[in-house]
Amino acid sequence: MQLKADVLSIEAGGPLIVVMNKEDAGDLGVISSDRIFVRYGDKHAICILNISTEDSPGILGIYGEVAQKLDVKDGTIVEVEPARRPESMDYIREKINGQRLSPWKIQRIVGDVVERHLSDIELAAFVTALHVNGVSMEETEALSRTMIWSGKQIDFGRSPILDKHSIGGVPGDKTTLIVTPIIASAGYSIPKSSSRAITSPAGTADRMEALAPVDIPFNKIKKIVNEIGACIVWGGSIDLAPADDLFIRVEYPLSIDPLLLPSILSKKKAMGSTHVVIDIPVGVSAKIKTLNEAEQLASDFIELGGRFDMNIECAITEGSQPIGYNIGPILEAREALETLYGKGPHELVDKATNLAGILLEMVGNKNGKQMAMDLINDGKALEKMRQIIDAQGGDASVKPDDLVPGEYTYDVPAPRDGRALWFNNRDLVKVARAAGTPNDKGSGLQLFAKTGDKVFEGKPMFRIYAEKEGKLENAIKQLKTLRPIEVGEKVGEDMMKKRIGKPTAPSREFILER
Amino acid sequence: MQLKADVLSIEAGGPLIVVMNKEDAGDLGVISSDRIFVRYGDKHAICILNISTEDSPGILGIYGEVAQKLDVKDGTIVEVEPARRPESMDYIREKINGQRLSPWKIQRIVGDVVERHLSDIELAAFVTALHVNGVSMEETEALSRTMIWSGKQIDFGRSPILDKHSIGGVPGDKTTLIVTPIIASAGYSIPKSSSRAITSPAGTADRMEALAPVDIPFNKIKKIVNEIGACIVWGGSIDLAPADDLFIRVEYPLSIDPLLLPSILSKKKAMGSTHVVIDIPVGVSAKIKTLNEAEQLASDFIELGGRFDMNIECAITEGSQPIGYNIGPILEAREALETLYGKGPHELVDKATNLAGILLEMVGNKNGKQMAMDLINDGKALEKMRQIIDAQGGDASVKPDDLVPGEYTYDVPAPRDGRALWFNNRDLVKVARAAGTPNDKGSGLQLFAKTGDKVFEGKPMFRIYAEKEGKLENAIKQLKTLRPIEVGEKVGEDMMKKRIGKPTAPSREFILER
Repeated sequence: MQLKADVLSIEAGGPLIVVMNKEDAGDLGVISSDRIFVRYGDKHAICILNISTEDSPGILGIYGEVAQKLDVKDGTIVEVEPARRPESMDYIREKINGQRLSPWKIQRIVGDVVERHLSDIELAAFVTALHVNGVSMEETEALSRTMIWSGKQIDFGRSPILDKHSIGGVPGDKTTLIVTPIIASAGYSIPKSSSRAITSPAGTADRMEALAPVDIPFNKIKKIVNEIGACIVWGGSIDLAPADDLFIRVEYPLSIDPLLLPSILSKKKAMGSTHVVIDIPVGVSAKIKTLNEAEQLASDFIELGGRFDMNIECAITEGSQPIGYNIGPILEAREALETLYGKGPHELVDKATNLAGILLEMVGNKNGKQMAMDLINDGKALEKMRQIIDAQGGDASVKPDDLVPGEYTYDVPAPRDGRALWFNNRDLVKVARAAGTPNDKGSGLQLFAKTGDKVFEGKPMFRIYAEKEGKLENAIKQLKTLRPIEVGEKVGEDMMKKRIGKPTAPSREFILER
Repeated sequence: MQLKADVLSIEAGGPLIVVMNKEDAGDLGVISSDRIFVRYGDKHAICILNISTEDSPGILGIYGEVAQKLDVKDGTIVEVEPARRPESMDYIREKINGQRLSPWKIQRIVGDVVERHLSDIELAAFVTALHVNGVSMEETEALSRTMIWSGKQIDFGRSPILDKHSIGGVPGDKTTLIVTPIIASAGYSIPKSSSRAITSPAGTADRMEALAPVDIPFNKIKKIVNEIGACIVWGGSIDLAPADDLFIRVEYPLSIDPLLLPSILSKKKAMGSTHVVIDIPVGVSAKIKTLNEAEQLASDFIELGGRFDMNIECAITEGSQPIGYNIGPILEAREALETLYGKGPHELVDKATNLAGILLEMVGNKNGKQMAMDLINDGKALEKMRQIIDAQGGDASVKPDDLVPGEYTYDVPAPRDGRALWFNNRDLVKVARAAGTPNDKGSGLQLFAKTGDKVFEGKPMFRIYAEKEGKLENAIKQLKTLRPIEVGEKVGEDMMKKRIGKPTAPSREFILER
């Protein structure tokens, strides 16, 4: 059947979609969600059909991505015919029905994900089935392997390659900005690719961007790491795991994360990592709630790493309150820099040197934590950070005071005399995001009290920074319904946690950061 | 945030979708799949956000359904703000995590489905979770009840109201066109709402449409049934179960059908049915493969009916080959009419009179099957059918010979001397659909042999009818890879069924007809 292309000014963001009038579809013998083979000249695409009741016959609505792939314009005549549903749908149905998938079948599924042959509906069903029926270690390995194949890989031509990764979920975690220069200043290679915030106030890429550009091309990364041993770049610019972004599109709205392990492993392997420390923060409002869960996840990471000749150790860390006192890109970059100056808060130094210490011991050093401490104290880590900043095109002479947060501020007072008993990280994140993070780099929060610290009625517990007045107001408004910090006399003395008189949906925000 | 509306010339078919530029979304603090509250004047809608990388800032792309709901045009300035994800997503996640849902939670989910607040991704996850984790009888009841509430209901102001329903899956099943007039000619009310074909060559509505219009307004249905006791109309025109169509949108591409029971029950209840016979055909290429499965389904139907004060009996019927000799709207209407003339093939008469007989016995008659037979033989059922055709606006004097199939035909020869051993219904359906069914009403198949009948090499086994020459060619082309009828000496003598040398995806076509 020949139809006239009508290029739609939108993209589906994932699948390749075309839209056909109901009568044309009937004549072609296809219905919504069926596959259509669309050909123009020597180019073709297998697309997913949507049906329109409005369009006139003879027209094929073409989403942006399809128009690009086929190189068609408005009015181009294209040839369409029904296509078979991809084989991978049969395997997805096997997973839905509780079967284990062979590596070959997983390869077909991920291949079709990357080729964008699967609709949102199909992808969501696959991810849901993975979550409900579980993912075996064999399946995890096959998923990781296929996700590596489907993306780019960097070969730095040297060994060992060290790396550090946090599964995320704790606000204010600027540890990577400290661990990376420590490791590189000890003479090791640590090419750090990191992500931007999805649901958090700042990702490592956002923090680093307050110091230097992070959108660094593939070849330049290789050059930087060969010269100075380290970089801290945005992973999105190097296309390490194209499948992962497409999975995240459907995982995020569902608040499920069955691909955590293959997602992280494949990105590390794509960077050629040989020794990796994985940080697993544990806390009631962190991604992982219990020590038990954390230990299971750690074991899985280590076993999976072994299947890829990668040495992995895990650090289960305290995740019940923010790391350090600052949240937001510029505020966190400043705190990290201060820490490299030797003036960091105890817990941040402790976390960073512990993680760096594990890495240093993994490659044969003794007393890794002390070694990491020394590299901060003798200024070598700071010097290395300046080299990284310079190599990525930032101002190497930057000092903490140069990092200025937003001009609009509001100090949040303590509701009573007492102590900060515990933090509700998710409420804190909501306030920070209302204030403009991660987009407004100068926005964020500065804490004046951490767990156990005394607070006084009417005196500031934390400060909100914003770059825009309206956003400061938004953040203040959020405070009315949120309780980011619980204040009381002593942990465990106030017995009543919540009163529930009618069925409610417990609020369960989702942390997707990887 | 204020944005300028850009009305997109497409519909999503289900969810309410708006498209925003990446920077605007960042400023608003939302990401793809988040909910956006869109307001224009005193109208508003909660929409699902898609992110575009192409659009310029300040623009809000608005899908057709949203534009209609808000009554906005290109260039209209609308107000947007972030909205909370609907509570129902929390319940969907509970189902994903294997919990049973309370009626209240199911009500919220179905409510959000009907309001189109859930994205394809979310709906697909829900349907997948229902399939994987199973649906309890309590959940089935709650789903049915909510699906009834969400649609229209007809009160005919009388009792009993009889009905017949087939779960479908066998080609050529024109039984409803015979059962309905039989029951009404016995003086009972049987308002039959039926569906069009989704994946089959003809639905009951398509068959009836060869005799009379089926798109009958709500009030006229009531009038017809009050006057003559019966109708055979298209359910789609009366909006009995708006949720069901939205579920089918995601069930079809996934080839899963966890909502079969509530879907059917809710439509029967919406018609006010008090006595229903459910036909469950069983056969290797039917929807239900084994007697065991059929018995389980029958028990569930009966129990569910009881919970809605509805008397249900089930008939497990032979579903291994087409019913009668004709497939396709006009061909089937003709065969049904011939049957009412007393000239139907044995099996079709047997099935129709058995089903009608069960219904007649359910409302207190003795020897229902014989009674049904008599109503055919003395012409009363035919007379009633003429009344139905007339009331719906068709030609009441229609005779079988007036129903003329497509002019392009091809006789498919038997490959060897022998007997028709068995039918592959799905291959038969593929040929029929390639020939133009259900859209081209005159297209279809006419069988010359049924299971066990002798066939002779080179002599016709069945005939293909098409309205267009090109479609006849398509259907003939299909035959090359398909084997709709297996020919051999004697069942069970040829031992080799299939040779498999490499892993393949077994072909598993899906029957969604309800």
